[in-house]
Amino acid sequence: MVSISYPLILINFKAYSQSSGRKAVELAKVAEKVSKDAGITIAVAPQLTDLAIVASEVDIPVFAQHVDAVDPGSRTGHVTLEAVKDAGAIGTMLNHSERRVRADHVDFVVKKARKLGMITVVCADTPEVSAAMAALGPNMVAIEPPELIGTGIPVSKAKPEVVLNSVNLVRKVNPEVRVLCGAGITTGEDVVAAIKLGTVGVLLASGVVKAKDWEEAIRGLVEPLLK
Amino acid sequence: MVSISYPLILINFKAYSQSSGRKAVELAKVAEKVSKDAGITIAVAPQLTDLAIVASEVDIPVFAQHVDAVDPGSRTGHVTLEAVKDAGAIGTMLNHSERRVRADHVDFVVKKARKLGMITVVCADTPEVSAAMAALGPNMVAIEPPELIGTGIPVSKAKPEVVLNSVNLVRKVNPEVRVLCGAGITTGEDVVAAIKLGTVGVLLASGVVKAKDWEEAIRGLVEPLLK
Amino acid sequence: MVSISYPLILINFKAYSQSSGRKAVELAKVAEKVSKDAGITIAVAPQLTDLAIVASEVDIPVFAQHVDAVDPGSRTGHVTLEAVKDAGAIGTMLNHSERRVRADHVDFVVKKARKLGMITVVCADTPEVSAAMAALGPNMVAIEPPELIGTGIPVSKAKPEVVLNSVNLVRKVNPEVRVLCGAGITTGEDVVAAIKLGTVGVLLASGVVKAKDWEEAIRGLVEPLLK
Amino acid sequence: MVSISYPLILINFKAYSQSSGRKAVELAKVAEKVSKDAGITIAVAPQLTDLAIVASEVDIPVFAQHVDAVDPGSRTGHVTLEAVKDAGAIGTMLNHSERRVRADHVDFVVKKARKLGMITVVCADTPEVSAAMAALGPNMVAIEPPELIGTGIPVSKAKPEVVLNSVNLVRKVNPEVRVLCGAGITTGEDVVAAIKLGTVGVLLASGVVKAKDWEEAIRGLVEPLLK
Repeated sequence: MVSISYPLILINFKAYSQSSGRKAVELAKVAEKVSKDAGITIAVAPQLTDLAIVASEVDIPVFAQHVDAVDPGSRTGHVTLEAVKDAGAIGTMLNHSERRVRADHVDFVVKKARKLGMITVVCADTPEVSAAMAALGPNMVAIEPPELIGTGIPVSKAKPEVVLNSVNLVRKVNPEVRVLCGAGITTGEDVVAAIKLGTVGVLLASGVVKAKDWEEAIRGLVEPLLK
Repeated sequence: MVSISYPLILINFKAYSQSSGRKAVELAKVAEKVSKDAGITIAVAPQLTDLAIVASEVDIPVFAQHVDAVDPGSRTGHVTLEAVKDAGAIGTMLNHSERRVRADHVDFVVKKARKLGMITVVCADTPEVSAAMAALGPNMVAIEPPELIGTGIPVSKAKPEVVLNSVNLVRKVNPEVRVLCGAGITTGEDVVAAIKLGTVGVLLASGVVKAKDWEEAIRGLVEPLLK
Repeated sequence: MVSISYPLILINFKAYSQSSGRKAVELAKVAEKVSKDAGITIAVAPQLTDLAIVASEVDIPVFAQHVDAVDPGSRTGHVTLEAVKDAGAIGTMLNHSERRVRADHVDFVVKKARKLGMITVVCADTPEVSAAMAALGPNMVAIEPPELIGTGIPVSKAKPEVVLNSVNLVRKVNPEVRVLCGAGITTGEDVVAAIKLGTVGVLLASGVVKAKDWEEAIRGLVEPLLK
Repeated sequence: MVSISYPLILINFKAYSQSSGRKAVELAKVAEKVSKDAGITIAVAPQLTDLAIVASEVDIPVFAQHVDAVDPGSRTGHVTLEAVKDAGAIGTMLNHSERRVRADHVDFVVKKARKLGMITVVCADTPEVSAAMAALGPNMVAIEPPELIGTGIPVSKAKPEVVLNSVNLVRKVNPEVRVLCGAGITTGEDVVAAIKLGTVGVLLASGVVKAKDWEEAIRGLVEPLLK
């Protein structure tokens, strides 16, 4: 079974052109460098088509952004967890606000990931959905109020009660499930605030991907954690 | 707030031609008659196009089979909970195996139903999904292993552990949520077995709708409960 | 086979609260009155839950806003064309920009509608999709650039070339298919412009539903057609 | 602009474990070898996660099995045509029966592919849908009756009229669009029959992927074309 250590900073490359193709590898290498220097886990979630090359070039955890709830076989245009594992990823995100799935599909993927020794990060938009996803037993739930995604207004400051309620409900339903938070995260201060609320780290995208200086942006996220 | 008393037999009319249009009203009237005679709650879930007429003709609880997670407004071809309430239904089923929805949509509908004083019955295919749905706080969760639907092999006998695990997990996550079970239910014996497993009743369709004699079929379901 | 005469004004009630429940019947009666006075076909597309009651109260063509591509049977929460016919509608809209469907589902519904003697109005967002939908042989294609829907900026004036290209491509692919246009239509002048571009009429919603005076709004649409 | 020469044999790797990961590269190399020997175009459509590595290892046309109708940007878990191009593919399949999409999404992808100089193969299940897809202007339409997929009963023999009607309707709607056929294709005789019906080649999957000897299977497909 793959394990992952906390705190965790998970960078979602989304379908941004800034983090696509060769640039996906470059960004992953910057993340790897900062991670090694700081001794803090930084994981990356590149696009599906970049997954194999990124996983082969860096020695940090690599996640898929999404997998379909299907087994290998006669399925065209679907992404199986098996394929994602073959590509070298250690796990997958699921149910992001830009790619919601049915609850039974989360159940399917989480159960299969457990069998394959892979890690699941299931997104949720409210404390109640966080609790629901926790009941399915993923490794992590990532609470992200969609209205803050991409705004630079950090959820850990703008809606601390949403994060706190998610942490509390998840703990009650399934204490083994860790909580990440996301949406609007750009600074180390936001990360510290997230961790103080009971999360094990953050999920972010534009705050890093669209930064002019990737290394500076990622260093800024981890530095306050080193004090 | 509408309330409902237990045990509950909820008859899903699906899109069966046998329970469509005028026949929907006839079947609902048979259910009403047996319900009044036996003093046991029998609810019906006709097709959306039959909802208003059925609700106006009978004095038993009427449910929609599904609603969309949208508010009234510029939405074409969607069914709002408000429209279902206007039509005279007291609540809605959601997430049936033939009409699965996203977890955040269940959250949306359950929260809105609470505001509108309506009742929600959310379906689930596994004990884990039952627990997940319970975390969203509907009135009832209906556990239905899809592979038994329409078979006449009752879940309460073929897979008692699935029902029992659902009851236990739901109780742990949210003790206010009641559990129904469905799939393969055709006889009163099946209903009794379901209730002994900790449910408050059953959800069924073909066992009644496709019966040659509706009244006999429904009487058969409630009779063992009267002893 | 049901027939319909042109020009046609088709009022989509959407899920607006202003045109829901009893108000759906009221609005349909206003449409009926203006239609009879003016001798011009005005059809209405109320919500699914209002379909039966509206169809029973007025003597103008009633359409569903959407149907699912399924046959009657073990289908929960779906709307069949058969149910829509039972409810008294003469046809259905399909593929509205707020409820897009797969091309094979349009094919399924159009073929079934033909067997059931029902009328289909399939929406499209570009001239090319208009042509594609025409290849499936519905009675009408309704071209609606989504960016103009609800704006009050009429497609017939703001994007006449989109309407014109749709008319020309549809004619080439299948000359038996009529073209409607929609999006931003509010006045009789818009309707006249639409007809001059080769359409047989318009599809509109907010321009009527949200008007303070329904009768005035609908009369305004048909009056220039009487000169 | 990328061009492709006909006849064309397009091998869909689906999500079969037999053609996943390193085996995807092996199978593509076998296809390349037979293609070079025979002088006939053989293209491959591996899984998304294998796309880049396959494209870098072989010198035959590589296609994606599916892309999403989105532009690069804030989109999680989606596959853009740009990413597929970056990965080295020359085009994409779309609307396979195992991954149907909306007609407006086909329109979006076909238009973008034209701008990016990429090739599109759009699947269809009936002659009418073939014509509809042709109206959107892809490079090829692939007619595949879903009920024959994976059966080994070749569409070119079992349902020649479906292929013939598709060819005729497509030609009428848009003579620049070529037609492939698929479903049940396993032998060179099936390919010859397909071409006699007016197609430019075949789309197949299990007939090659599940064959004990890939080279034998692929040689068998092209040999009758060499006579």
